[in-house]
Amino acid sequence: MKLYDYLPSQNGFKVRLLLGHLQVPCEQVPVAIFQGESRTAAFLEKNPVGAIPVLEVEPGAYIAESNAILCYLAEGTQYLPSEPLARARVMQWLFFEQYYVEPAIGTLRFWTLTGRLQANEPLLAGKRASAERALDALERHLGQHAFLANDRYSIADIAVFAYSHLAADAELDLRSRPAIGRWIDRVKAQSVQLPAVYAYTPDAIATA
Amino acid sequence: MKLYDYLPSQNGFKVRLLLGHLQVPCEQVPVAIFQGESRTAAFLEKNPVGAIPVLEVEPGAYIAESNAILCYLAEGTQYLPSEPLARARVMQWLFFEQYYVEPAIGTLRFWTLTGRLQANEPLLAGKRASAERALDALERHLGQHAFLANDRYSIADIAVFAYSHLAADAELDLRSRPAIGRWIDRVKAQSVQLPAVYAYTPDAIATA
Repeated sequence: MKLYDYLPSQNGFKVRLLLGHLQVPCEQVPVAIFQGESRTAAFLEKNPVGAIPVLEVEPGAYIAESNAILCYLAEGTQYLPSEPLARARVMQWLFFEQYYVEPAIGTLRFWTLTGRLQANEPLLAGKRASAERALDALERHLGQHAFLANDRYSIADIAVFAYSHLAADAELDLRSRPAIGRWIDRVKAQSVQLPAVYAYTPDAIATA
Repeated sequence: MKLYDYLPSQNGFKVRLLLGHLQVPCEQVPVAIFQGESRTAAFLEKNPVGAIPVLEVEPGAYIAESNAILCYLAEGTQYLPSEPLARARVMQWLFFEQYYVEPAIGTLRFWTLTGRLQANEPLLAGKRASAERALDALERHLGQHAFLANDRYSIADIAVFAYSHLAADAELDLRSRPAIGRWIDRVKAQSVQLPAVYAYTPDAIATA
């Protein structure tokens, strides 16, 4: 397998973290997204919307969308239950993540770390309100549950963790949300024994 | 089962359409989202982010996020294949929909139909660019495929159809994208024999 990826992407990080848990070997293919490498005709054949990560599962067979890749890799493992309701609860948080977490927290973080806040000033209030709504939902749910779905670590936690644990980079307040903080510690504890390339390494993911 | 729903929502429509295909009986519970009924303490117990649709699969057991509900209902049916790569291709388009289609096309359509364009003027260029990117990706893919995944009608088509077939309501150009137009006709042809409550009824979904 090959993972077309961009190392500072937290969407890529999700996939790398799960690959680490599963100990699945996977060739990394770096894609320079800010130099247009994900919008070439050749890359659009892999993913018609021109975004990373993309997993090539066999020569010429591609899966795009980070959370779709997580589902594919996790099938049949402890990270995605097969019981219908338990599975649905994992899926709920995966869709929540792509709708509420990444576009708000991820985008605000990117603008903050790369000095783009002022250029996007008209969008900030809306993005900030969305991010606060997402964090409020997480705090509400994690106040009653150790993990997002079925009280067990799953790809739901991996996906939501990717951007939300870095919310402070976007000057969003995690300190007033203690349940999220405790959950972040629990998620980090799942990955401390992974090889360094997959483990939680703040330095490697602190830019964009 | 009960579906907490708001009739003009295309996210709700997706679920209703699949229920129609499956001929699964389901009680409809209307939620007046613009009167705050999805943000009450009682509703936040059903979905911590306070949005519809929500499916109550047994008393007290809730699934939120329209596409997670589609996955749950479609499991074991022709609308969601079990073969891993075929399934991954369906999942890819479900995540694509919630990231690229609904927030751009759905939001622009809502603002257009409800007279909110001017109030959101600073956001329009970004939303329009996102919508064009989504439609370009769909045109590119549907130029080579009859349906979004595995050349077979699935919940991927149901989800993406919900907002994208109404793109013209948001003054987005479908006429210059003939592959999308032909796919819309194919998707509509799947549902013409459904009971009226589930069938494609433009009048019923033309507001918001």
